[in-house]
Amino acid sequence: MLHVIERALSLRSSYDHSFAVEVYEDISDPGLIGWIKRHVGERTALVVTTPTVNRLYGTHIQKSFDYAGAKPEWIVLKCSEEKKKLEYVERVCLAASHAGLDRRGVLISLGGGVCSDIVTMASSMLRRGISHLRIPTTLIGQIDAGVGIKGGVNFGAHKNYLGCYHPPEAVAIVPSFLATVGSNGIRQGLAEMIKVACTSDVILFEQLERARPGEIESWVSSGDRRARELIVRSISAILCELERNPFERSGYERALDFGHTLAHPLEASTNYKLHHGFAVAIDLAFSALLAQGLGWLDAGSCRRIIGALTSSALPLWHEHLSLDFIRDAFRASAKHRGGEINMTLPTSIGTYAFLKREQQCSPGLIESILRSLRQLESQRSDGDLDLPSRACATKFPGAFVTQIKVAELP
Amino acid sequence: MLHVIERALSLRSSYDHSFAVEVYEDISDPGLIGWIKRHVGERTALVVTTPTVNRLYGTHIQKSFDYAGAKPEWIVLKCSEEKKKLEYVERVCLAASHAGLDRRGVLISLGGGVCSDIVTMASSMLRRGISHLRIPTTLIGQIDAGVGIKGGVNFGAHKNYLGCYHPPEAVAIVPSFLATVGSNGIRQGLAEMIKVACTSDVILFEQLERARPGEIESWVSSGDRRARELIVRSISAILCELERNPFERSGYERALDFGHTLAHPLEASTNYKLHHGFAVAIDLAFSALLAQGLGWLDAGSCRRIIGALTSSALPLWHEHLSLDFIRDAFRASAKHRGGEINMTLPTSIGTYAFLKREQQCSPGLIESILRSLRQLESQRSDGDLDLPSRACATKFPGAFVTQIKVAELP
Repeated sequence: MLHVIERALSLRSSYDHSFAVEVYEDISDPGLIGWIKRHVGERTALVVTTPTVNRLYGTHIQKSFDYAGAKPEWIVLKCSEEKKKLEYVERVCLAASHAGLDRRGVLISLGGGVCSDIVTMASSMLRRGISHLRIPTTLIGQIDAGVGIKGGVNFGAHKNYLGCYHPPEAVAIVPSFLATVGSNGIRQGLAEMIKVACTSDVILFEQLERARPGEIESWVSSGDRRARELIVRSISAILCELERNPFERSGYERALDFGHTLAHPLEASTNYKLHHGFAVAIDLAFSALLAQGLGWLDAGSCRRIIGALTSSALPLWHEHLSLDFIRDAFRASAKHRGGEINMTLPTSIGTYAFLKREQQCSPGLIESILRSLRQLESQRSDGDLDLPSRACATKFPGAFVTQIKVAELP
Repeated sequence: MLHVIERALSLRSSYDHSFAVEVYEDISDPGLIGWIKRHVGERTALVVTTPTVNRLYGTHIQKSFDYAGAKPEWIVLKCSEEKKKLEYVERVCLAASHAGLDRRGVLISLGGGVCSDIVTMASSMLRRGISHLRIPTTLIGQIDAGVGIKGGVNFGAHKNYLGCYHPPEAVAIVPSFLATVGSNGIRQGLAEMIKVACTSDVILFEQLERARPGEIESWVSSGDRRARELIVRSISAILCELERNPFERSGYERALDFGHTLAHPLEASTNYKLHHGFAVAIDLAFSALLAQGLGWLDAGSCRRIIGALTSSALPLWHEHLSLDFIRDAFRASAKHRGGEINMTLPTSIGTYAFLKREQQCSPGLIESILRSLRQLESQRSDGDLDLPSRACATKFPGAFVTQIKVAELP
């Protein structure tokens, strides 16, 4: 018998937040000093940084904090994807406790995506959530990990299995940090740039493909104005996408998941020796070929995507890829995306659709794509793959397409 | 030189949530089966419970899940305040991972406040937040810990230092669980009931003080209709308070913090051997006497509060209390409540004000209150304190009031 409820008991809650991403010339930029003054000032604060950033910029940025009248405590954490675990979040919490951070205190991540992931999660937990600021020092941090609202750590074999949505109070982008990032780091960031360009900003994509191979990398390293434009444009595109569905509550069809279905299990399968951006590049290449194989994407656009990746010297293939691997990745994705794979596939430059179920692509199609990717990679290694970065590529090996039986759409 | 921002980059996000607390007759109540069907159904699910609850109710409630067509995995966790640590949250996350919980999966806490604290925190972290349900089995769980939106664990000497705001999807209250809670558990719940009655529901307070000593405890144990009314009334008052400021973002002056300024460090100082509800009772007694000493509360109302506590056989004193302890607690509170102590003090039954700064109460006042509390406790232990539970108490030892120099208010 249903017990009659004496009165309606319920609790309604609402949480609004907004933050700004601001771009500054360099570490000494008075604008940045003002930003520190505004957001840190006399609050109790803890900077979390990495050994490399600390060595290269520690003294300099401590001076900037001094000028701003801020006296944060400072810890150096060896951040790497293998170490992105709850244990490291606890270390930051312990340091915050030792530093006497109060509820209006603030954590500041001064490092790459792993550093901001750990700091975001620690700040979400400390006293049930304190503020955090981000000063990303890598390209992937500046255009992707550092401007979103998520934090997370790996758990067992699951990448980012534990995490939070905890928006930063503010983000400062200083492109001059990228002078010391190195080729690997920059290319990883370019993979994320190609991703967001492909789904959300045709003009950005055209800017990327118009550059000569290696050119963007050199702009980024040298602090060229053109690099800064690409960075700002990428951030703008990402924020625009995030704002549509910041907590992923209005569905699991997300443009920003392009390149992020195989990437996570692929990284995990190498115990994170394969870096995130490279795994994303491989996933983007697979996705482009799958979209073409399904008849969702024309050959020209597929070539443009592969072209943009190879022009940035990004990988297209990894030995761990196999039919079984892809199927497992699809299942893991469905577990995480509301029961359907929801793999973002390009349908042209600037548009996309979602692969929902495994049955939509036959084993033959997947195997054919894997063969093609391996072939593309080996041609490139041999120097045979002279993919122009513009749409009119002619030398692209399209043979795989004829081997494919396009699965019927439901 | 301030770098001119190419375009305004910002991200706005908003999160709305509401949940219902529903009250059911007993574990076999078809309403509860319907609730399970609605909220669990065929979702991947994990029940987290305690050894005692599992022994007493495990088989029975598993049947209820069966009837509802739900097939949750089940883990038994030895929950206690000493064990309320991040490690236990990790254990739940691991069990959720083994149980194959997907993003639409759900955790169910079937236990007391510690169990729901751990489960709330685990569900806030799993895949950056999955749903959780609560079926609280203790009085403190049913009227306090289980109906809020917080979860948390202790960290070093700090109670609830790490935590989250993560509202449950729904809460089911089954007062018949309380038949097996035992006197200690019920009295702890009564401390929270007295707390919320005192700040927020005069009628509830009158109902509590009208009962004979020990009477409410026996109503609760026997499942008396009057106990259910008190429970529903308490939940209603708490939800009403929470809804004003669910994320504690619009300030740190909270009615619900009454009895929660000394309580947390006091519990921690005993390594959680002193249970939460008892620490709250001691804090309530201190607060009432402090309010009277400050001239904020009349002697009659102070007596009524002390009377309600003693009538429920709640403690008023602990040997760890001292002037230094109180001062440290004030400082810890200020760290947690935006720089000011914000200790909730009653100004009558149904109204309250906030102690902001240590300077508002002299060391002499605090020492005098501590002496009075010790005296009250020893009188009660000797059976001398025959405090009537109604407002017209005459035997209340009011001597301490004359020893007090009321500090000047700022």
